[in-house]
Amino acid sequence: MSGIRVTVWNEGVHERVDAKVRELYPNGMGAQIAQYLEKQPGIASVRVCELHHDEQGLPEEVLNSTDVMTWWGHKAHKELTEENVERLHKRVLDGMGLIVLHSGHHSKIFKKLMGTSCDLKWREIGERERIWVVDPAHPIADGLPEYFELPHVEMYGEHFDIPQPDRQVFISWFQGGEVFRSGCCWHRGKGKVFYFRPGHETFPIYYDENVLRVIYNAVKWAAPTGVKEITRKNVKPIENVFIDP
Amino acid sequence: MSGIRVTVWNEGVHERVDAKVRELYPNGMGAQIAQYLEKQPGIASVRVCELHHDEQGLPEEVLNSTDVMTWWGHKAHKELTEENVERLHKRVLDGMGLIVLHSGHHSKIFKKLMGTSCDLKWREIGERERIWVVDPAHPIADGLPEYFELPHVEMYGEHFDIPQPDRQVFISWFQGGEVFRSGCCWHRGKGKVFYFRPGHETFPIYYDENVLRVIYNAVKWAAPTGVKEITRKNVKPIENVFIDP
Amino acid sequence: MSGIRVTVWNEGVHERVDAKVRELYPNGMGAQIAQYLEKQPGIASVRVCELHHDEQGLPEEVLNSTDVMTWWGHKAHKELTEENVERLHKRVLDGMGLIVLHSGHHSKIFKKLMGTSCDLKWREIGERERIWVVDPAHPIADGLPEYFELPHVEMYGEHFDIPQPDRQVFISWFQGGEVFRSGCCWHRGKGKVFYFRPGHETFPIYYDENVLRVIYNAVKWAAPTGVKEITRKNVKPIENVFIDP
Amino acid sequence: MSGIRVTVWNEGVHERVDAKVRELYPNGMGAQIAQYLEKQPGIASVRVCELHHDEQGLPEEVLNSTDVMTWWGHKAHKELTEENVERLHKRVLDGMGLIVLHSGHHSKIFKKLMGTSCDLKWREIGERERIWVVDPAHPIADGLPEYFELPHVEMYGEHFDIPQPDRQVFISWFQGGEVFRSGCCWHRGKGKVFYFRPGHETFPIYYDENVLRVIYNAVKWAAPTGVKEITRKNVKPIENVFIDP
Repeated sequence: MSGIRVTVWNEGVHERVDAKVRELYPNGMGAQIAQYLEKQPGIASVRVCELHHDEQGLPEEVLNSTDVMTWWGHKAHKELTEENVERLHKRVLDGMGLIVLHSGHHSKIFKKLMGTSCDLKWREIGERERIWVVDPAHPIADGLPEYFELPHVEMYGEHFDIPQPDRQVFISWFQGGEVFRSGCCWHRGKGKVFYFRPGHETFPIYYDENVLRVIYNAVKWAAPTGVKEITRKNVKPIENVFIDP
Repeated sequence: MSGIRVTVWNEGVHERVDAKVRELYPNGMGAQIAQYLEKQPGIASVRVCELHHDEQGLPEEVLNSTDVMTWWGHKAHKELTEENVERLHKRVLDGMGLIVLHSGHHSKIFKKLMGTSCDLKWREIGERERIWVVDPAHPIADGLPEYFELPHVEMYGEHFDIPQPDRQVFISWFQGGEVFRSGCCWHRGKGKVFYFRPGHETFPIYYDENVLRVIYNAVKWAAPTGVKEITRKNVKPIENVFIDP
Repeated sequence: MSGIRVTVWNEGVHERVDAKVRELYPNGMGAQIAQYLEKQPGIASVRVCELHHDEQGLPEEVLNSTDVMTWWGHKAHKELTEENVERLHKRVLDGMGLIVLHSGHHSKIFKKLMGTSCDLKWREIGERERIWVVDPAHPIADGLPEYFELPHVEMYGEHFDIPQPDRQVFISWFQGGEVFRSGCCWHRGKGKVFYFRPGHETFPIYYDENVLRVIYNAVKWAAPTGVKEITRKNVKPIENVFIDP
Repeated sequence: MSGIRVTVWNEGVHERVDAKVRELYPNGMGAQIAQYLEKQPGIASVRVCELHHDEQGLPEEVLNSTDVMTWWGHKAHKELTEENVERLHKRVLDGMGLIVLHSGHHSKIFKKLMGTSCDLKWREIGERERIWVVDPAHPIADGLPEYFELPHVEMYGEHFDIPQPDRQVFISWFQGGEVFRSGCCWHRGKGKVFYFRPGHETFPIYYDENVLRVIYNAVKWAAPTGVKEITRKNVKPIENVFIDP
């Protein structure tokens, strides 16, 4: 591959209606993530798509020219059309990587890929989070310390209603008494899915170097690889088969 | 638990329209499975529900009094209403075990729980199948030989588009050159899901002692256990938390 | 099975050399666990074996009449003979369940079954632990609340150098900032292995109702099931195979 | 990383004592694998080490300058010294990738990393093998067709006594009636382990383009990534912890 083509999908609603969010992310959360990714090696291109764009930022041409998509949504999950969710779902099964961030746990596409409610506990008192690496061999942990801290976050707590991850990379500790499986990998069809917990509209999470590094590592991990052509149909047997009468 | 309450859900369409199927299963495939299960230890009750019953055999009272449901469907997957799929899905996440049989791989409920297409290859020349146990410690393999054979079957082949199973219990070999992950376990929420490949409307698969034993083992494995009450909401922190300014 | 035959293997060294431990567990930690288990339904027998017994408490007759063994050791891991470790290992692969408790993470048998160092972080300031259920459908979580607390414990922290668990049942939160995968399941051959973190010689952990309940649930989960006879040798092909020239 | 440093460890005994093997692999199986790998992009260097070399081909300098090692052994597994196995094991846990080929399933290092017997069934009648991809998203399947064939092989059959793979990439079909989990991934500590079944001293398996491609893909997958520094010791709590009295 000559480089990964990334689409940062950002809901873009909080930034428009909330001055505090706009102050933190003047060009939107998507732009902040995109400007980091586009400077990294191996990234061919990065574009930001938002809900208010044509076809909710998910036209066929965008999907077909995207290797990995990152997803941030919160307030407007319900506005995504079923048609767009269907199209996204097909693209993931066909090989597009998907990195779901923070409140994206309740997005239609993540719930459809998981097959569960994706419900969780939460609390917003600005407590401290420690993100521990529990799979130090994993490429998504590349270059990280054994744990890193975020000083003020919204808490997400277990039970997080997801399928058991194929690989568990991170587990979070919260000051107020909870744990959370905050970095989880799954394969779905020819595509890869990574859920990463950190991120919030009013804490400056996407300015944190470790958080950005994880997103970049995840983009590289989720880039399409593997088998291209799969047939699922009525097939012929191998030659010289003797069928018992 | 004083005994497992089983509901055998059977589409019941082939049996009505095809004389050959009726000859093989005069009372329907569901009845054949049910009459085996109801004689086994630890089973409190078994009832058969079919698509043409009230509310497609899935009224709230049935779901709420079912510990484990087995599912066989083929021709009429599309007829199941979205409302019933939704209700079934909630019941599984809330703890009801689900055993999906053979062509049930394309049922709406299985695809919703898996989050993938559940597509596969197939062929119908009556070839031989060998079902190998690859997890000999698993309760679903209890009392089985290390492999067993079915002399004439419809073939299902890889790639089977499912999430990686939490536990892979069986892998099938087919005379014509294919392999298939034919016994797969997943947890979804508080519920357990088992997919088991064997079963067909015109081969006498549900008369095979090993096949029936697997279904019984799976019913016991899938019976509700675990945590009853889970809260997913805004929660308070542990006492004595010092929040950094 | 007419009931599970349990052997509680207890190192039994701390109890002899340390008055504080003896006060807490006058008959040893093993006896405390055993007296709980023997009252539970489905348990046929419970015996306690200790390092200072004949053949280190692990004679062939004991292993061959044990369905599930629980293991607590700490000070004297090195004293176990290689011959006894070898014999234990074979018994687990042949179907005996093994429940490894707390400091047993560094026992020879656990390290041999895992294939890793099983190293971890630790701290002993009597801090609080919250044990969260992350797999609410699992039989080892049966009857538990969604989390439970131990007021004063020794901390164990990540990275815990184990193979990714086949199923992750519990994750611990510690007051001092760490998380730990504290309830982990693996299959090894025909046997099942469960590691459970809680337990310490000077905190009264094995008087806690939830801890005891987990050990009992784990004993039931780890009891032998599955395939009895497996051949691993040079085998004949299926009849009627045409080998290409 | 500026390129992966590969060591192809080859037992090198068959090639010396068996004219048929020498004819097939005049410079040894190791050289055949090495000459393929060294032409591939991203590979910095490839060297071949054999059992009869100094320190059995495993001196500290070799291990410390190897990113990924491939391993073929058969006749002489027992000759490897415990000291060398211990050193290899430490290097894998510390991050060196290990690709175990064919009869290497019974090598001391593989058995130590797995914690099981690694036993299996076998047969040598030169039957046909079909290797099916069951995880089409996996980087080790990159660029492969959905299955490929080897016309004449030694058969390996289930039950293969290994821990459940973290990811199952390939499953083999054999003409004579068996299946086999022939491509399996595990993480162990900071290292990655891949077992790949194909390969034999008297069939020209390591001339097959698909087999070589898998080995190359596996080398890239197993190259060290992740967290560099992990402390496992007595640690201090986070500041401002209130310990309950």
